[in-house]
Amino acid sequence: MFENTSITSLESLGEFGLIDHLTKKIQLKHPATIKGVGDDAAVIKNAEGKCTLITTDLLLEGIHFDLGYFPLKHLGYKAVIVNLSDIYAMNAKPKQILVSIGVSSKFSLEAIEEIYSGIHAACAQYNVDLVGGDTSASKQGIVISITAIGEAAEDEIVYRNGAKEFDLVCVTGDLGGAYMGFQLLEREKRIYVNNPELQPDLSGHDYILERQLKPEARKDVIDILKALNIKPTSMIDISDGLSSELFHIASQSDIGISIYEDKIPMDPATFNMARELELDPTLCTLSGGEDYELLFTIKQSDFEKVNNHPDITVIGHCTAKSEGMNLITKNGNKHTLLAQGWKAF
Amino acid sequence: MFENTSITSLESLGEFGLIDHLTKKIQLKHPATIKGVGDDAAVIKNAEGKCTLITTDLLLEGIHFDLGYFPLKHLGYKAVIVNLSDIYAMNAKPKQILVSIGVSSKFSLEAIEEIYSGIHAACAQYNVDLVGGDTSASKQGIVISITAIGEAAEDEIVYRNGAKEFDLVCVTGDLGGAYMGFQLLEREKRIYVNNPELQPDLSGHDYILERQLKPEARKDVIDILKALNIKPTSMIDISDGLSSELFHIASQSDIGISIYEDKIPMDPATFNMARELELDPTLCTLSGGEDYELLFTIKQSDFEKVNNHPDITVIGHCTAKSEGMNLITKNGNKHTLLAQGWKAF
Repeated sequence: MFENTSITSLESLGEFGLIDHLTKKIQLKHPATIKGVGDDAAVIKNAEGKCTLITTDLLLEGIHFDLGYFPLKHLGYKAVIVNLSDIYAMNAKPKQILVSIGVSSKFSLEAIEEIYSGIHAACAQYNVDLVGGDTSASKQGIVISITAIGEAAEDEIVYRNGAKEFDLVCVTGDLGGAYMGFQLLEREKRIYVNNPELQPDLSGHDYILERQLKPEARKDVIDILKALNIKPTSMIDISDGLSSELFHIASQSDIGISIYEDKIPMDPATFNMARELELDPTLCTLSGGEDYELLFTIKQSDFEKVNNHPDITVIGHCTAKSEGMNLITKNGNKHTLLAQGWKAF
Repeated sequence: MFENTSITSLESLGEFGLIDHLTKKIQLKHPATIKGVGDDAAVIKNAEGKCTLITTDLLLEGIHFDLGYFPLKHLGYKAVIVNLSDIYAMNAKPKQILVSIGVSSKFSLEAIEEIYSGIHAACAQYNVDLVGGDTSASKQGIVISITAIGEAAEDEIVYRNGAKEFDLVCVTGDLGGAYMGFQLLEREKRIYVNNPELQPDLSGHDYILERQLKPEARKDVIDILKALNIKPTSMIDISDGLSSELFHIASQSDIGISIYEDKIPMDPATFNMARELELDPTLCTLSGGEDYELLFTIKQSDFEKVNNHPDITVIGHCTAKSEGMNLITKNGNKHTLLAQGWKAF
C-alpha cells in the first residue's frame, strides 16, 4: 500500500554498497591525486616518479574486537597491522602511522599503555614511525582509528584494476586460520559465560589463535616479488575473505576469475578446527577474512618464477568477464562464486 | 594506609598529560619524518624542499557533539574543518582528506548522506579531494575520524616551537563565539528537555550559533600572511581555547607570554551572551575553544605589516621564560594565566 520510499536501511546496502553510493559522485580536483577511493590506499604524487600512499581503518569495540578475549596489547598490534597490510597491498612500504584512540575514563593509564605497547611493538617490527594522532574520552567503548602512510616509486605501485584475461591468480601463506581462531574464541567464550567455572580450553590451537590475535602483514612478500623480478598485474590484501577480494579484483579489472578449490592453501590446524566446528573448510577460506595475506595476479610468463615457491600458491586464473566468477570444486564441478565478504551492517 | 599505586586514572592525567606520557619515548626512525607528535600536523619530507603534512582528529557522539541539536550536515562540515584548520596552522595548504565513519545500523542511508553532504561541501569550499576512508557499523553512536593531508615548501612550514622573546603574539578573527554558541544550545536544550512544549529560542543569535555549528578554517590567513610577506615565528590553531594554545607555544618555544585582556578580540554578540549567561567574557575567550582561529607570533619588525589589519589583532608579546604566563587585566593588574584548555577526561 503505502511505502516510505525515502528511507533506505543500511542493512539493505551492505558496507560495499554504502561506500559505492557515498563515493560514486566524487570528482578529484588535484592532479597530484592519482588514486582516490576504491583501492587499498589512496595514492598522491609528490615528486617526479614518487608517490605517497595513505590508508585508514577504524576499529570499534563490539564490532571488530571483543575485550572479553582480546588482550589490549594484541589489539594495539593488530590495529597497526591491518593498516600496514593495505600499504603492502599496493606494493609499497609503510613509513609512518597516526593513531587516534577514544577510551572511557574508567580505563586506567596502564590499560592504555598496554594498547600502546602493542602499537610500539608493531612500529618496531615493521620499521614505522608513530608521528601523530588524537586521544579522546569515549562514552562508547574503545575506538581506534589508524592512518598509515607509505611510499613507492610511481611505476612500482600495483592497483586492483590491472588484471588481464589469462593472468594467474596467486595468494600468499594460507587462508581461513584467523576465522577459525575467531570461531574457537567465540565458542570458548560462550561456554565460559554459560558456566564460569569451566576454564576456556585453548591448548593446542596456537596457530589459529595467533592468526586471529596477532596477525602479521606480508612485508616480506614485497621483497620476495622484487627479488623474483615480478610486478603483479593487480593486488589486494585479504581482510574480508578471499571471495570478496576476488570480486574486487575482477570488477575493477573488468574480468572474470576461476579458482580451484583444491589449490586454496589451508593449514591443517585450520582444516581440523573447521571439521570440529562442523563448518565447510573451503567456505571458511572464502568468507572468513582477517588473514592479511596478499592476493595478486601475475602474467602467465611469470609462472615459473612462483611455481613451488613456499610463500606463494597459484589458485586460479583470470578469464573473460563473460565467464563470471567460478570455483572449480575438488570433483571438477563448476560453482558460481559469491561475494561473501564481511558485512558490517 | 594501603594504596594501589599501580593504577593511574586518566582523569588525573588529563588529555595532554596522557599524550605526553604515551609519546615521550617515541624515537623516529626515518630521516624523512621531520616532525612527529607534538604539533598541529606531522611533517614528512617527500622531495628536496617539499613536504607532506598529515593530521587526524576523532569526533565522538556524546563527547564532541550532541545530535540533539547538531544537524548532521553541519557535523560533516565541521569534522572536515577541524582537520583542515590543523594544516593551515602549519602555514600549509590541505589537499586531500580521508574520512572514516562508524554508525549504528539504525541510521538510514539518508542520514549518512546528510553527513556526507556536509563533508562534500567542505571539500568544495576548501578545494580538497576526498580520497579514502572506512565505514563501519558502530554499537556506540556516531564515530567520525578524519585525516587531512597537506603540502608546503619545507622552508614555509611554521611550527609551535619558533617563538622568541620580544616576538608579538597575534590572533585572527575574534574569540569565544563558538563557546557562547555551545552554551546557548545547551541552555535551550535543558529548557526543552524540562518542558517539551517550550520551543528553543535561538533567534537573534546567528553569529555565535554559526561559530559553533558551522565554523570555518582560516584558509584566507595563509594567503594574507604571504601577501604581507610575513612568516610567523610560531603558529597553532585555537581549538581548545586561547589559554591552552598559548601554553603550547610557550612550552615548545621555551619562552613566557604576556597578553592584554583589553586586546583580546571579541564580537559584541559573544560579549552579550556571556553577560546574559553570567559568565566572564574574557574567561570564555581564554578557555572556550572551538574558534578555529589562528594564534601566531611574529617578529617585532613585522608589526607595521599587521597593525590595523582587519583580520589580525596583536594581543601581547613573548617574554623570557622566567617571566611566566601572564594576563594583564583591563585595570593593569598582572594575573598568572592558567592552561584551561579542553579536558577530555
